[in-house]
Amino acid sequence: MRTLTRNMLAGALAGLLMLAAMAAQAADPLPSWNEGASKARILAFVEAVTQQGGKDFVPVEDRIAVFDNDGTLWAEQPMYVQLFFAIDRVKALAPKHPEWKTQQPFKAVLEGDMKSLAASGEKGLVTLVMATHAGMTTTEFEKIVRDWMATARHPTTHRPFTKMVYQPMLELLQYLRANGFKTYIVSVVGVSFKQPWTQAVYGVPPEQVIGSTIKTKFELRNGEPVLVRLPQIDFIDDKDGKPVGINAHIGRRPILAFGNSDGDLQMLQWTTAGAGPRLALYVHHTDATREWAYDRKSAFGRLDKGLDEARVKGWTVVDMKQDWKVVFPDAK
Amino acid sequence: MRTLTRNMLAGALAGLLMLAAMAAQAADPLPSWNEGASKARILAFVEAVTQQGGKDFVPVEDRIAVFDNDGTLWAEQPMYVQLFFAIDRVKALAPKHPEWKTQQPFKAVLEGDMKSLAASGEKGLVTLVMATHAGMTTTEFEKIVRDWMATARHPTTHRPFTKMVYQPMLELLQYLRANGFKTYIVSVVGVSFKQPWTQAVYGVPPEQVIGSTIKTKFELRNGEPVLVRLPQIDFIDDKDGKPVGINAHIGRRPILAFGNSDGDLQMLQWTTAGAGPRLALYVHHTDATREWAYDRKSAFGRLDKGLDEARVKGWTVVDMKQDWKVVFPDAK
Repeated sequence: MRTLTRNMLAGALAGLLMLAAMAAQAADPLPSWNEGASKARILAFVEAVTQQGGKDFVPVEDRIAVFDNDGTLWAEQPMYVQLFFAIDRVKALAPKHPEWKTQQPFKAVLEGDMKSLAASGEKGLVTLVMATHAGMTTTEFEKIVRDWMATARHPTTHRPFTKMVYQPMLELLQYLRANGFKTYIVSVVGVSFKQPWTQAVYGVPPEQVIGSTIKTKFELRNGEPVLVRLPQIDFIDDKDGKPVGINAHIGRRPILAFGNSDGDLQMLQWTTAGAGPRLALYVHHTDATREWAYDRKSAFGRLDKGLDEARVKGWTVVDMKQDWKVVFPDAK
Repeated sequence: MRTLTRNMLAGALAGLLMLAAMAAQAADPLPSWNEGASKARILAFVEAVTQQGGKDFVPVEDRIAVFDNDGTLWAEQPMYVQLFFAIDRVKALAPKHPEWKTQQPFKAVLEGDMKSLAASGEKGLVTLVMATHAGMTTTEFEKIVRDWMATARHPTTHRPFTKMVYQPMLELLQYLRANGFKTYIVSVVGVSFKQPWTQAVYGVPPEQVIGSTIKTKFELRNGEPVLVRLPQIDFIDDKDGKPVGINAHIGRRPILAFGNSDGDLQMLQWTTAGAGPRLALYVHHTDATREWAYDRKSAFGRLDKGLDEARVKGWTVVDMKQDWKVVFPDAK
């Protein structure tokens, strides 16, 4: 009796799910994408891997899609959002650090001297990140990020950074999830800087966020367990690090990878080297009017080797100007 | 029209899901657990956090449950399964390493001299693990683990290790998932040693497996991307490391944690320190007849401080002998 009821329920559910899927298919799942080769390839891929009994069918548990963040899901010009955060934090913390007035790279930040800041190079950058991202508990840092994200604005568009996301990519994430994909973010941005807001902004839960990490240390403070963020780099999730992070975190190879720079090249190589259907995509920033136009020579999000390899391997290069009807949400 | 259809479908689906949930509740979800305080607390907790509108309701995305592996989900006596694997690998690789005949800890392994092996201590253990777990690609290692798991047998029960899992825990994992929980494994066992079989054995997908890691390196070999396993420890997922691993991987605090040893103490502390309803449990190995009886003095899975803290804090201590109707599957 119980088995019968269960089977009947399962049958009814399956039927309804199929109807729901058909209804979803009837509408355009990617309304902000212009008709063209990029959109057609995405639609064809998703249809192929979800077609039960088809030669390219992929079981739902293997439908893993990975997305870079900066320049792929949101804007990265004139510089990475996490850098704006670090700079704002230096300014906020400066009263407690009088020594910063004469110490680089802090002096440069406080004086708005971007040239000296750039000259401080990677070492300066790491010093800046450690001074602003470590020394507090994970819970405290999460609140700092949330509070900043709620009030910070992009310097030229004056939008909140969470509104500098790409509308076509929001639709793609949603479309993939509606087709059984698990969507992951894999980017050099610190994992703790992303986790507080990815669910609200992208619909990606914190456990599907992979990124750079600093070391943390468990402590009991008056009997209360805390995790303290230490000024020590643990892992850099960029270039070679992306497949490493994906493997450690997910334990299986994605079937779809979407990036926008040479920092994503190894992730696309790793994804496409698996058996069966694979889709690799690059956002090419070609739209100086609605966003920015840059590729081979950009300081942030350089796309050079990746662009060449995409052409050789036939990866999909999404031309922002041609392929996207709108760029940002609420800007239709 | 489209909206109407969608709403109707959603309504029908919700109704059916509720019916299915009611049908599932009617049957005993934990048939291998004897009636008693442990079972009652588990059932009461799950009912409380899933009761929409109730004061202890927890949204489905926050229903995170973490489980230790060795001694919690499967047996860890007379020693950890991963050690059996390392020893078997040393024997298999010995023909290529004539130097091992005179080199410790390899000599001890090859001569079955467990006393000298134990005397080699943690340093010997690390040497053994590095010699057997590194030096190949991730894909090669996965196959080695799968092949070994398919043929290896426990030395006294002669069962496959994957049949040395605890039937009551399989039911609990399933029961939690049926109630919207995401179930994670968090244990000192290497993540790459667990990921190939956790889905089949526990229903836990590789992306919900957290564990110790060694470093890996991305390489192109004749144009083919591979990840090479390096003989370098990256992270030890034990004691203080468990909350660290949970935070880095999941990015939110679990509401249920289940362990069996002092190695799980910090995970239980971290889990129960969050706001709202929390459940912390220990398996207490009290059954010398059906499994093993050990706690405060065991070399593997010592439960000493944890047992004291569980009593002080009122955590649930599952008494294997009293609380479990059966221990292993197919042994009813």
